[in-house]
Amino acid sequence: MTRYALTLEFDGAPFMGLQRQNHGMTVQQAVEDAVLKFSGQDVRMQSAGRTDAGVHAYGMVSHIDLDTDLSLFRMQEAINACLRPHPVAVTHIAIKPDDWHSRFDCTGRSYIYKICNRRAPLTFERGNAWQIPQELDAEAMHDAAQILTGLHDFTTFRSVNCQSQSPVKTLDRLDVYRKDEWVFVEAEARSFLHHQVRSMVGCLALVGMGRWDEARLKDALEAKDRQMLGINAPPHGLYFVSAQYPNET
Amino acid sequence: MTRYALTLEFDGAPFMGLQRQNHGMTVQQAVEDAVLKFSGQDVRMQSAGRTDAGVHAYGMVSHIDLDTDLSLFRMQEAINACLRPHPVAVTHIAIKPDDWHSRFDCTGRSYIYKICNRRAPLTFERGNAWQIPQELDAEAMHDAAQILTGLHDFTTFRSVNCQSQSPVKTLDRLDVYRKDEWVFVEAEARSFLHHQVRSMVGCLALVGMGRWDEARLKDALEAKDRQMLGINAPPHGLYFVSAQYPNET
Repeated sequence: MTRYALTLEFDGAPFMGLQRQNHGMTVQQAVEDAVLKFSGQDVRMQSAGRTDAGVHAYGMVSHIDLDTDLSLFRMQEAINACLRPHPVAVTHIAIKPDDWHSRFDCTGRSYIYKICNRRAPLTFERGNAWQIPQELDAEAMHDAAQILTGLHDFTTFRSVNCQSQSPVKTLDRLDVYRKDEWVFVEAEARSFLHHQVRSMVGCLALVGMGRWDEARLKDALEAKDRQMLGINAPPHGLYFVSAQYPNET
Repeated sequence: MTRYALTLEFDGAPFMGLQRQNHGMTVQQAVEDAVLKFSGQDVRMQSAGRTDAGVHAYGMVSHIDLDTDLSLFRMQEAINACLRPHPVAVTHIAIKPDDWHSRFDCTGRSYIYKICNRRAPLTFERGNAWQIPQELDAEAMHDAAQILTGLHDFTTFRSVNCQSQSPVKTLDRLDVYRKDEWVFVEAEARSFLHHQVRSMVGCLALVGMGRWDEARLKDALEAKDRQMLGINAPPHGLYFVSAQYPNET
């Protein structure tokens, strides 16, 4: 048995999330089914993040244990071939020590959230961004976002279903910037609470609309109360970008 | 009756092309059906370009004649609402003189062709780019592309179904550049022959693979013979970008 780290890119639209569910296809099941198909082995995949239904990934890191003679190149090709027609691709594969864990060893996670500011319906990016017709003030959003960086109790921005032991997390970076009709929110932390990025983006969008000011956001954070949350941004604008591990450059 | 110019963005994947066909849904029919739905008027749309099945557009320019009291804003909103769920959006709308024609008055057309150089299957961009696993030499492609710019008889790069009166055209610009795993080809001319961009991109891809050199491309051009064509690039990598008209900045 060898432990393999897989870097996954996926369009979350058709999935009930990353993690295996009883009620629909998930990214985990798609990959496990693909591995079963070419190897005959029933693996269980673990991942750095457990993204919700509709959430996408550019570089999710997962791992599986497999007994195979295939080279890394052939194994990647085999998984990708068997993943069709699911919109999931293994973009990188590596051998890891047997005790390496994609989730527990992960020391940094980054997300990007995409907002499209326009009235006309989305065509190419439909299902891949949050469309807000009103032009957001991205600079005001960025300034307000700095209230959320650092060590805080993020209870306000935490799903009631969150399984994290503590709501206290350090948010390393939360940047907001505009590019043409797009507003991007980039978030980095060792780990995030369930719904944390979407909850923060939802409140920042209210700031961008002029409906919330910085004081209101600060109050919401300090209240440590989910009832103080403005809105939760929809899942289809969110992308898991990358996972960091020790001893990696 | 007022003549309206519509700027259209569309994902060509589900369509049998822009122009009305008897055997399947087209962009033209989608827009005409949308207009009929909110206005009750059976319009006929004309367009700057007649893109093939699978070809996309960021800024196709079309026109229709309509009798309506709606403001431009309301009319755009109505068409877009009635276009759902087709991946077509009216991104701009303007009133034009009665004799203005989106096709015959057009003095410049630009296209972009997208090639993705990677082995892993495409996820987000599936159906929106030509995937070539082999890394292309974009600089060699750009150098070779300059053979094709200027005034030439483009018979080699012309579909047998092309309805243009003459195969002699002036290609104003053909630029190739790489950005990460992507290779982009940008083309500009007053007008193009049927399949011209895809035929040129197909031959440039052979140059990028090292299978053709510049002399071979020059021979193909000068032969004025469709049999000398290397390959025709697939439609789903091609995007109609914009149409220019006199007296517009």
